[in-house]
Amino acid sequence: MCIFGTGDLGRSLGLRLLQSGYRVVYGSRRPHSCGPLPSGAQVMTHAAAARSASLIFICVHREHYEFLETLQSKLEGKVLVDLSNNLKKGMYPEANAVYLQRLVPQAAVVKGLNTLSAWALQNGLLAGKQVYLCGDDARAKRVVAEMATKLGLTVLDKGSLSAARELEDFPLRLFPEWRLPLCVAVGLTAFFFFYLLIRDVIYAYVENGNETSYRIMMALANKVFPIVSLVMLSLCYLPGAIAGFLQLYRGTKYSRFPNWLDRWMLCRKQMGLVALGFAFLHAIYTLVIPIRYTFRRDQMSTVVDEMKRNTSTPFDNTEAWGTDSFIALGILGFFLYVLLALTSLPSVGGSLSWREFSFIQSKLGHLTLFICTAHGYIYGWNKFLSISTYKWYTPPAFMLCLIVPSVALVLKLLLLLPCVDRTLTRIRQGWERSKPKDAVGVTNL
Amino acid sequence: MCIFGTGDLGRSLGLRLLQSGYRVVYGSRRPHSCGPLPSGAQVMTHAAAARSASLIFICVHREHYEFLETLQSKLEGKVLVDLSNNLKKGMYPEANAVYLQRLVPQAAVVKGLNTLSAWALQNGLLAGKQVYLCGDDARAKRVVAEMATKLGLTVLDKGSLSAARELEDFPLRLFPEWRLPLCVAVGLTAFFFFYLLIRDVIYAYVENGNETSYRIMMALANKVFPIVSLVMLSLCYLPGAIAGFLQLYRGTKYSRFPNWLDRWMLCRKQMGLVALGFAFLHAIYTLVIPIRYTFRRDQMSTVVDEMKRNTSTPFDNTEAWGTDSFIALGILGFFLYVLLALTSLPSVGGSLSWREFSFIQSKLGHLTLFICTAHGYIYGWNKFLSISTYKWYTPPAFMLCLIVPSVALVLKLLLLLPCVDRTLTRIRQGWERSKPKDAVGVTNL
Amino acid sequence: MCIFGTGDLGRSLGLRLLQSGYRVVYGSRRPHSCGPLPSGAQVMTHAAAARSASLIFICVHREHYEFLETLQSKLEGKVLVDLSNNLKKGMYPEANAVYLQRLVPQAAVVKGLNTLSAWALQNGLLAGKQVYLCGDDARAKRVVAEMATKLGLTVLDKGSLSAARELEDFPLRLFPEWRLPLCVAVGLTAFFFFYLLIRDVIYAYVENGNETSYRIMMALANKVFPIVSLVMLSLCYLPGAIAGFLQLYRGTKYSRFPNWLDRWMLCRKQMGLVALGFAFLHAIYTLVIPIRYTFRRDQMSTVVDEMKRNTSTPFDNTEAWGTDSFIALGILGFFLYVLLALTSLPSVGGSLSWREFSFIQSKLGHLTLFICTAHGYIYGWNKFLSISTYKWYTPPAFMLCLIVPSVALVLKLLLLLPCVDRTLTRIRQGWERSKPKDAVGVTNL
Repeated sequence: MCIFGTGDLGRSLGLRLLQSGYRVVYGSRRPHSCGPLPSGAQVMTHAAAARSASLIFICVHREHYEFLETLQSKLEGKVLVDLSNNLKKGMYPEANAVYLQRLVPQAAVVKGLNTLSAWALQNGLLAGKQVYLCGDDARAKRVVAEMATKLGLTVLDKGSLSAARELEDFPLRLFPEWRLPLCVAVGLTAFFFFYLLIRDVIYAYVENGNETSYRIMMALANKVFPIVSLVMLSLCYLPGAIAGFLQLYRGTKYSRFPNWLDRWMLCRKQMGLVALGFAFLHAIYTLVIPIRYTFRRDQMSTVVDEMKRNTSTPFDNTEAWGTDSFIALGILGFFLYVLLALTSLPSVGGSLSWREFSFIQSKLGHLTLFICTAHGYIYGWNKFLSISTYKWYTPPAFMLCLIVPSVALVLKLLLLLPCVDRTLTRIRQGWERSKPKDAVGVTNL
Repeated sequence: MCIFGTGDLGRSLGLRLLQSGYRVVYGSRRPHSCGPLPSGAQVMTHAAAARSASLIFICVHREHYEFLETLQSKLEGKVLVDLSNNLKKGMYPEANAVYLQRLVPQAAVVKGLNTLSAWALQNGLLAGKQVYLCGDDARAKRVVAEMATKLGLTVLDKGSLSAARELEDFPLRLFPEWRLPLCVAVGLTAFFFFYLLIRDVIYAYVENGNETSYRIMMALANKVFPIVSLVMLSLCYLPGAIAGFLQLYRGTKYSRFPNWLDRWMLCRKQMGLVALGFAFLHAIYTLVIPIRYTFRRDQMSTVVDEMKRNTSTPFDNTEAWGTDSFIALGILGFFLYVLLALTSLPSVGGSLSWREFSFIQSKLGHLTLFICTAHGYIYGWNKFLSISTYKWYTPPAFMLCLIVPSVALVLKLLLLLPCVDRTLTRIRQGWERSKPKDAVGVTNL
Repeated sequence: MCIFGTGDLGRSLGLRLLQSGYRVVYGSRRPHSCGPLPSGAQVMTHAAAARSASLIFICVHREHYEFLETLQSKLEGKVLVDLSNNLKKGMYPEANAVYLQRLVPQAAVVKGLNTLSAWALQNGLLAGKQVYLCGDDARAKRVVAEMATKLGLTVLDKGSLSAARELEDFPLRLFPEWRLPLCVAVGLTAFFFFYLLIRDVIYAYVENGNETSYRIMMALANKVFPIVSLVMLSLCYLPGAIAGFLQLYRGTKYSRFPNWLDRWMLCRKQMGLVALGFAFLHAIYTLVIPIRYTFRRDQMSTVVDEMKRNTSTPFDNTEAWGTDSFIALGILGFFLYVLLALTSLPSVGGSLSWREFSFIQSKLGHLTLFICTAHGYIYGWNKFLSISTYKWYTPPAFMLCLIVPSVALVLKLLLLLPCVDRTLTRIRQGWERSKPKDAVGVTNL
């Protein structure tokens, strides 16, 4: 094994290779003044180092690749592993590895391992980590893959060297799987915010001349948060139901889902976590209500009014039951929400068996959705039929937000009907409706 | 290596085997139309595939095992690994692996790896995962164990093939270690709920004719939750104290604990987490009080009363100290509770040294129990001696619930007495009271 | 492989070695009565066992090492691995491994693996765990390191046998990296507590004769918590800014930071988590306010006053905006705080790419600091210029606590200026100001 470059990454990689029993040689511009290297490793000039090894790691910035051209003859037939990354996307017209291959056409360039950080290497945080490889030479890729497996890494082959650009973009990715859920969240928040702004603040100002702009900061936000949270939670469970109906309709599980459904299903976890974030904000915003200036003012004026009128409204048992159920359902829903989120932590989820995981995410998840939807329905129990609710002929926001969860729950209920459920289970075990009888043979796990 | 079956599991397993440097051959009914397989693997008919390998993974549903009977001659002397699972417990009279061994008596059947999911295999989430093996042929088991270790798995041998049924039931288990704590929680909740229902709601109705059923939803629940939480927290620490006394009494650590104590000790973590769940609910229920209709009504009527009587009760300094201490202890207890739970997360707990873990779970745990118990005692500080507390001659629920924690704390205090502690430490280091002097030789780590 | 000692550790280690394909022999005092051992292992007398293996694990308490002296001849040239730990620091004048080497001078003693617990070994929780080695014989260390790597461990060589004492102290460490943050937290808490005690309680008593000692329990605590939390959060981000300026001043990233800065930077994560703990307490203390006796008393007396005066203060729109913004910023800050803490969980942080991790910890972290500081400024928006705030000529505590966060934010802002940022980025990529032009060649990753 030879490593070109004695920077942080080169040093950490060498240390790890030495520990796995490999002999490591460093190639350096200045073999005598290149700082502390892991004990057991030799340092030589680039040329000497290249001669002594068949596998060479290039831990050097792309800008300095030119010197490799001068080593052409020594690199013939060697495997070069390009670990470099760029600072930005699209900094260079061609991928680093492609450029390297062009410089040294006689060597077999493999792009890979570039998602490893010096820090992770140094601290031995490799176990089970997934790394990517690509290259045009199958033998070279096999050699690198075996080395990586020995280091405890899990290798995924991404094909030919033309995938190098994709690999080089990996370390630059910023939460790709969070993008869609966050976009949905921002879109929903903006929509409902303006909807409520019009109904709650502008309506009051136009019709009655009340200045209630202070409601924006808390009261409005505390209406937007639960709405977005509930809609996003139901968006977690809707694609599963749609997929079920699609499988039923097609009568097989082997045809691929349409692209949009695939993407949707892949970001369900992130969707749920964003929903939890909104639910968390809703919870704190609600708990904080009694400290607020407006709440205390309201209470005070109620008391003063009552005193002045010198009457007292009797205690309303139904009202007490209603609000208490409303609050209790909300708390319970939030509690289940948190439970769901805990099991999506990698270390917790990893310790569950498949059946336990699906029990939590499916059964408990739908229960959470049901409870949160009920929380929404009880909120509006005495508002659905009163005309004053429909300001400017628009329904209140909480009614709008109950549509998607209701649809998701109804679809799930349909799928749970015994006859539908039985067919679906058979399909998911590999049974195909269209398959001719005689072809039904061995189905595989 | 040979894999029969090209389903999800077969494909993922083959991919992982290829990456670990094995040569993989698939056996298929229809070698020419079996969908995408990992690159590098060959596909043949079952017979040809069986001939070319010594270790064969059976990734096929049990219902289709019959075809293996026809391959008898090709399977002679081979190692067959049965990875199959069933959908329900007790679907078949004999375990799948036993059935397979009966079909192909000349092969060495090993049951195992069936807890792996295709999903975990594909995503390289194997590092350190525990898998189980069983089989009648020791050599075959050793071959499979070595292969599994190479994949990064941790193998646990469960003995002969008669354990196959147990292994096949593993993936069907649903939180076995949570069953006891949840049963205890449900039992305690039901008991205290009815106890409080009688004392708080029915008593008020019978004696004074008050309709206070609305209290069920929140007020009652918020009494039940802290009670159950405190009792369950103390049940986490009680078995440790009992075990200590048992070791002291027996004078050795080498004799096994009675069965019930063993089971109890094994579910302490789950017990604690359930207790935290109840504490969490208690916390939110408490914080939500001021938003509730009844609370606002109460406050209002107090003010109105005061105004009408035209007097004012002076500010009570003792009352202020009392309630504030009560609340502060509750918050502190909850905070420590959450800390304890965080260290029981696999990834956090795994990064602690043994001494740190035991410091948190034992010292901090007992401190939490002490603070929460003090929280309970302060709640009742002025109620213990008033007769009106003992409705229908029953003690209030919070008194009942203080018994177990107090016992646990007293037992722990006794164990901390210097003389007792010294003996116990010696016993836990391997010293035995009954051992004759001359036999005391090397004690082992 | 030979293991001396059939205790818990010996048994678990043997089991793991057997599973990794090693042949294991136990050496025991009483080969015929040493309890259940892992199947596949042989048991012999110490002498016979020593003869049959080249690598011997000593899983015996230090007090019983003497018997090894009698085996001198059999141990010549063998590698002895000392896994022993002590119960307390400094129990013996010399380290266990040094003592062992003195007893058996002809063997090569390697100290190591002593941080492994029998429990972790038994449950296969080894993957990627870091273990330490030290010893005087390089070859012996290499043999042990390779064995450990095969078990899935990550090895760190700590040098010669004189480091053995340090290794033996590892399992006795109690949160070493938490010590500094906790000291800072305790110091800050004590200072601000007494500062507030003087200003809020003693001042009121001395000047007006008011007995307000009940404020200590909740009101005072709820002022101390946010102050300490904010200061500690800013202490997380201050060292990064200082380090940036130091690198700018020195013009290189290759010279080491002063010792105090290094130590400070290493405990930033713990500092932040302690800060979160205080923020959590602040949040609950705040939410609990409306349940408190004093709050309800205050509200009541306000109403009664208003009724008696028979006037009503008009609704103040600015006040509503101010308090609501104050609360909303607090909630948002706490929410981001929790997000930051979640990504510092090992299992969550481990699944992030380097860029994602630094995005969260740097960008989101500074945003959190900014929001929390703004929360503090808004709290005092109408208090900075009123004279009554400066009791006994001291500034209120919240002003004091805003100094450090403001400094940290200003420093960070300076570093973000385009010209400064560009230079710093170049320095962090390896550019050196002092380097002569011609020496600028290959910079390494």
